[in-house]
Amino acid sequence: MSTAGRVIKCKAAVAWEAGKPLSIEEVEVAPPQKHEVRLKILFTALCHTDVYFWEAKGQQPLFPRIFGHEAGGVVESVGEGVTDLQPGDHVLPVFTGECKECTHCKSEESNMCDLLRINTDRGTMLNDGQSRFSKDGKPIYHFVGTSTFSEYTVCHVGSLAKVNPAAPLDKVCVLSCGICTGLGATVNVAKPKKGSSIAIFGLGAVGLAAAEGARISGCSRIIGVDLNSNRFEEAKKFGVNEFVNPKDYNKPVQEVIAEMTNGGVDRSVECTGSIQAMISAFECVHDGWGLAVLVGVPNKDDAFKTHPMNFLNERTLKGTFYGNYKPRTDLPGVVEKYMNKELELDKFITHSVSFADINKAFDLMLSGQSIRCVIRMEN
Amino acid sequence: MSTAGRVIKCKAAVAWEAGKPLSIEEVEVAPPQKHEVRLKILFTALCHTDVYFWEAKGQQPLFPRIFGHEAGGVVESVGEGVTDLQPGDHVLPVFTGECKECTHCKSEESNMCDLLRINTDRGTMLNDGQSRFSKDGKPIYHFVGTSTFSEYTVCHVGSLAKVNPAAPLDKVCVLSCGICTGLGATVNVAKPKKGSSIAIFGLGAVGLAAAEGARISGCSRIIGVDLNSNRFEEAKKFGVNEFVNPKDYNKPVQEVIAEMTNGGVDRSVECTGSIQAMISAFECVHDGWGLAVLVGVPNKDDAFKTHPMNFLNERTLKGTFYGNYKPRTDLPGVVEKYMNKELELDKFITHSVSFADINKAFDLMLSGQSIRCVIRMEN
Repeated sequence: MSTAGRVIKCKAAVAWEAGKPLSIEEVEVAPPQKHEVRLKILFTALCHTDVYFWEAKGQQPLFPRIFGHEAGGVVESVGEGVTDLQPGDHVLPVFTGECKECTHCKSEESNMCDLLRINTDRGTMLNDGQSRFSKDGKPIYHFVGTSTFSEYTVCHVGSLAKVNPAAPLDKVCVLSCGICTGLGATVNVAKPKKGSSIAIFGLGAVGLAAAEGARISGCSRIIGVDLNSNRFEEAKKFGVNEFVNPKDYNKPVQEVIAEMTNGGVDRSVECTGSIQAMISAFECVHDGWGLAVLVGVPNKDDAFKTHPMNFLNERTLKGTFYGNYKPRTDLPGVVEKYMNKELELDKFITHSVSFADINKAFDLMLSGQSIRCVIRMEN
Repeated sequence: MSTAGRVIKCKAAVAWEAGKPLSIEEVEVAPPQKHEVRLKILFTALCHTDVYFWEAKGQQPLFPRIFGHEAGGVVESVGEGVTDLQPGDHVLPVFTGECKECTHCKSEESNMCDLLRINTDRGTMLNDGQSRFSKDGKPIYHFVGTSTFSEYTVCHVGSLAKVNPAAPLDKVCVLSCGICTGLGATVNVAKPKKGSSIAIFGLGAVGLAAAEGARISGCSRIIGVDLNSNRFEEAKKFGVNEFVNPKDYNKPVQEVIAEMTNGGVDRSVECTGSIQAMISAFECVHDGWGLAVLVGVPNKDDAFKTHPMNFLNERTLKGTFYGNYKPRTDLPGVVEKYMNKELELDKFITHSVSFADINKAFDLMLSGQSIRCVIRMEN
């Protein structure tokens, strides 16, 4: 019997308050409204951004809330005006959408959609300003338009990338956020040439994905920079072939890298969000052609500071958001790169737990053991 | 009778000490050595950089010296190992050379030649560390490898661009420095699309050349920013069609421009060297795709400072040197753009004086009356 047009009762992992373990509850998921899609989540992964807003330190807390934004699912039903998707389509929900109508979507260069750009403060749907989730008649808030820690969720159609149904969702689900962020920073923005050198600051999931992009691009020197030397062994799997721990030197890491590389690397990608790492990542690229790409999100009060001659000597600094991927336009192609074995995803997925054990995924991330832990919704 | 291999006696405008009028003297010009070329200068223009080092404020002074670095001339004789040029060739000397052998010259992206990159401290030739100029047996120093305020000068072959002999040297001589610097910043680095918007900070010769690049590129909005509103009328000839004087507003000029352009300009080019203008030029470009290009040379102690989110919102900041032109490789093509009337140069040349009146060119520049004053060596 079709569930279309009816409220679905299902299990969701609800965050009732900041920093407290999620609780698996039966919730009600309302049908999709105009330009919305309801989907069944099959796999979801945990990302640092979930943890950051779950901890809610220094933030205006918004609870109860259903987190989750790296996932793969199947369309259950569509609302009015949705023509691009139909029940049964395989989709990846993405925390930042693509309306295809705004100035940014119409620009070839930008993926910062005016309508569906990430909004971590909003906990409701755009159409009516209400939540589609409830329990006992009380609303539970959405998170970045995805809320994938639920067996069913409702998203704006612009936040869903339709992908090849042959692609294994337990693998490609990690493309919804961190992996594309790092991968795209390298392949779409830094665009290193074959045989060139690159420094990657931060060897978490995003930095390792940036390294994977460098490996795919044929970089010959992939220099990993991290304050935690324990990460270096694992990073070798991702193409990182040289390592620098800034703590091992009594001079700025940009000087260390310049000495290693006869004046600087061709490209760098900053994936930590530390302002000092941003400055180092910029100043370690070679004059004449060096390009540094900022990915990590800084603190509110940080100031990027450098001598302007570092720019005038023909260095370039760019920032990127979600690896410059337009989710609906570009994600199907990234999935195909995985399907044709150009892009390796399996090595990012270090752990897997059942939905009932979702809090273990938090523990694994907080203790630094996992790169990605995939949560299986069905078993 | 050929002068090759012999010392040439000719007139030069010698700067005997900082800030004092140049003196036309008879000097001796030695023959070119290995990889050097002696040329007869026909036209030379005056650039702010000459004035800056002539004033020598806060610098280690190097006098007596022959200034001059925007010029057109004809090869008189060549030294050992020079195969690219021969007597009679028309050339533009350039303050920064292209050896064609170093890492930078071999990079497609850089024009910052390791061997012949601008060096304002050096007053001698590379081959033997001596000057080719003398008077009464005492050396007179070179300036940036060009010293074009002389009827004859000696340059490294890597500092000479061979150009179409049909090109009028009294016009194309201005391509040796300022005009290419601004023009290239726009056409080679900012690369604005047809119909796009651009802000040009500073409407001196370099800024007007950046505007000329924007006009050629088909920009629809060319916003000139200058603290001197008297420059706005002249700037219209260079395609500038909107003006902002930051003094007319009680908020930062980047906010004024963002309001004028629904979020920011597509491109900006900073041609003043003021650190505040650099920050404004960066912060006035649109998120998602905006690109700012720094051209103006900052003070030694300046710090470029901005919130890193300005980068993460997909803005790009690049610096350029000599408009990213490789002098020997690219200047012949720029001259052709003038010949086919794509590039307008005549409007930059507001004044012309005889060599005997060279100090008038300094007066015209210091009083802000000239964009470019061409000095005629022969009449």
